[in-house]
Amino acid sequence: MRKIDAVDFFYLSMPEITTEGDGSQDALLVRVAAGGLLGWGECEASPLVSIAAFVCPMSHGACRPVGASVLGQRLEGPEDIARIAAQIELDSMDLLQAPHTWSGVEIALWDLLGKAREQPVWQILGYRESFRKLPYASQLFGDTPAQTYQQAVEARRQSFRAVKFGWGPIGRSDLQTDIEHFSAAREGLGKDALLMIDVGQIFGDDVAAAAERLPALKRIGAVWLEEPFHTSALNSYASLAKQSSVKLAAGEGAHNFHMAQHLIDFGQVGYIQVDCGRIGGIGPAKRVADYANAKGVTFVNHTFTSHLALSASLQPYAGLRSHEICEYPFAPKPLAREITLSHIDRNKDGYVSALEAPGLGIEINTEAALRYLVDVEIQVRSKVLFASSKQI
Amino acid sequence: MRKIDAVDFFYLSMPEITTEGDGSQDALLVRVAAGGLLGWGECEASPLVSIAAFVCPMSHGACRPVGASVLGQRLEGPEDIARIAAQIELDSMDLLQAPHTWSGVEIALWDLLGKAREQPVWQILGYRESFRKLPYASQLFGDTPAQTYQQAVEARRQSFRAVKFGWGPIGRSDLQTDIEHFSAAREGLGKDALLMIDVGQIFGDDVAAAAERLPALKRIGAVWLEEPFHTSALNSYASLAKQSSVKLAAGEGAHNFHMAQHLIDFGQVGYIQVDCGRIGGIGPAKRVADYANAKGVTFVNHTFTSHLALSASLQPYAGLRSHEICEYPFAPKPLAREITLSHIDRNKDGYVSALEAPGLGIEINTEAALRYLVDVEIQVRSKVLFASSKQI
Repeated sequence: MRKIDAVDFFYLSMPEITTEGDGSQDALLVRVAAGGLLGWGECEASPLVSIAAFVCPMSHGACRPVGASVLGQRLEGPEDIARIAAQIELDSMDLLQAPHTWSGVEIALWDLLGKAREQPVWQILGYRESFRKLPYASQLFGDTPAQTYQQAVEARRQSFRAVKFGWGPIGRSDLQTDIEHFSAAREGLGKDALLMIDVGQIFGDDVAAAAERLPALKRIGAVWLEEPFHTSALNSYASLAKQSSVKLAAGEGAHNFHMAQHLIDFGQVGYIQVDCGRIGGIGPAKRVADYANAKGVTFVNHTFTSHLALSASLQPYAGLRSHEICEYPFAPKPLAREITLSHIDRNKDGYVSALEAPGLGIEINTEAALRYLVDVEIQVRSKVLFASSKQI
Repeated sequence: MRKIDAVDFFYLSMPEITTEGDGSQDALLVRVAAGGLLGWGECEASPLVSIAAFVCPMSHGACRPVGASVLGQRLEGPEDIARIAAQIELDSMDLLQAPHTWSGVEIALWDLLGKAREQPVWQILGYRESFRKLPYASQLFGDTPAQTYQQAVEARRQSFRAVKFGWGPIGRSDLQTDIEHFSAAREGLGKDALLMIDVGQIFGDDVAAAAERLPALKRIGAVWLEEPFHTSALNSYASLAKQSSVKLAAGEGAHNFHMAQHLIDFGQVGYIQVDCGRIGGIGPAKRVADYANAKGVTFVNHTFTSHLALSASLQPYAGLRSHEICEYPFAPKPLAREITLSHIDRNKDGYVSALEAPGLGIEINTEAALRYLVDVEIQVRSKVLFASSKQI
């Protein structure tokens, strides 16, 4: 019987972290060992806090560390991953960080399982084919409309047929400035490219503030308006959706299947965006993809970091042909690019697809990762609960 | 101007932690210093992970440590607490543990504000009177129906007119055993006491499994069935509510206002239970109380730990006369009882109320707390981000 022998966390970081909304500045790599094989995953989450949630002392029966439900467990098939997930849901019910920690571990378990079966993960999930996806260049707005324009020109120069601008100054100064950014993006891209706009929850639950931007978004032909509100502000989503011809997109903040389901049913989003590194991994993301497909909502991955995370995020909807849009990190920090030897590059037609190689099909560049490794030590009652390895 | 000068965390624990569902086995005390005054709060959360979320390195602009939004901030009135909360919602958006960490800090800020104004917190919240609440003895089911019976007899002997049994074996063996526990509880209590049943999310989202228990719950006259499902399984709640004459209760897992709102609107619960130590503190809990009141749903505190947590949990609905039920720790671990000098004891009629003293009105027994203090040290890049104080 194959058992989970070890789970190791590697906290990687750029030397300097800035306040820009760029999630590729650090990473939490997860390596799982079972039956002589290794699997790799990544949490899209605070590395230190996620590590703490794996090793923390138990507080009571429903507030146990994630590690207690993982280490030593059987890993023969997908049903074992589901079983461990259900165990964590009960035994770490009161440990809020648990889904973020578990996500990276879960991804690594799928990778390992795929290697054991010599199958890509999407095949184990039941798909027969990995369909092409149209990658959109995902990037932050410039500080000024002129910078946003330049970035759009650059994305076009690199032949991206779809581009997303997000965060940055939007909602932080005035309506007119936001409109100038929106227009600059469209102008720089030209009229044919798909253009998505992401405002990073800036309006909280304020429907009126978000609604003011709708005419400009319609004018530039935005495919979607992403995250106008807090992930849980379902009523605000529903209210804005009712008055908007531009579809809404959200979901990256969902940390379980139900949250994504409710964004679809109660929030009336047209695009559901799932980060496998937060929602509890590939299993619940697949469940969201199936649900979205049945409800006529388009599934999109949320990925702003490495190509390991990108590969994981493609698996849940690899076989859904009509869900074609794919978030693709456009200008990640060197860390995010360098820590994998394999990459999911665009083909000559500008498309990407989930790989045919076993597992997630991504080889880790341990030497590169080592250069970004952050030293962490956590002691409780003078006992070392976590000390980062000096090697990967 | 009064500014937040310091926030200190004290991780307290019983010498031994068991897997029983008893949340009083450890505690995370929070002390805030501002303008020469001290305020105290408590997180109902994993202490180590919650501390890590206060001190962790920033990952990017929307994944900053909670401390970055708190330390040095102005604290003149409730609007400052709301401002800091909104800041955390944006700047720690991707830090899942943040609401649990912030909850204890927020409570301490209210305590401090009350002391500065020489007013109880419920007055600052706008209430003119602190109405009596009927405390229910909150305890775990016994391992056997005979033990459950004995515990019910003991609660009756101590003159509790309302009792809740929860967790333990329910849903873990078979239907018949569960029914025997339910019947034993009613038998031991006698026919007059209010009896609530809490099954601790054991059915996940399985409506049929929960529904099987309804006839027995009706027979014993249960006031409510608490947490049959995962906090986010709103459809399961709604579906069970539709077929149940026994009202549903839930909410302790809500970590923001919206989650509680959706349990009311989409989950159709009849009782909304809020833990101030998880939902983001007293501010969002008051918002839930107002919402519940407007919707004809009964607000109930969730409290299983100290009388500091109990006092905090009473504030949001102190002035709502018709919301009379109050969860009251019945047999907490010594830690939870000893760490406060003041207690909210039942009066001769068996009622409790939020205190008239300034702030939360609870004095901390620092000497007792010291006996339970757990030594913690967190280092990142050989820099100590947190080292527990040797004194309180």
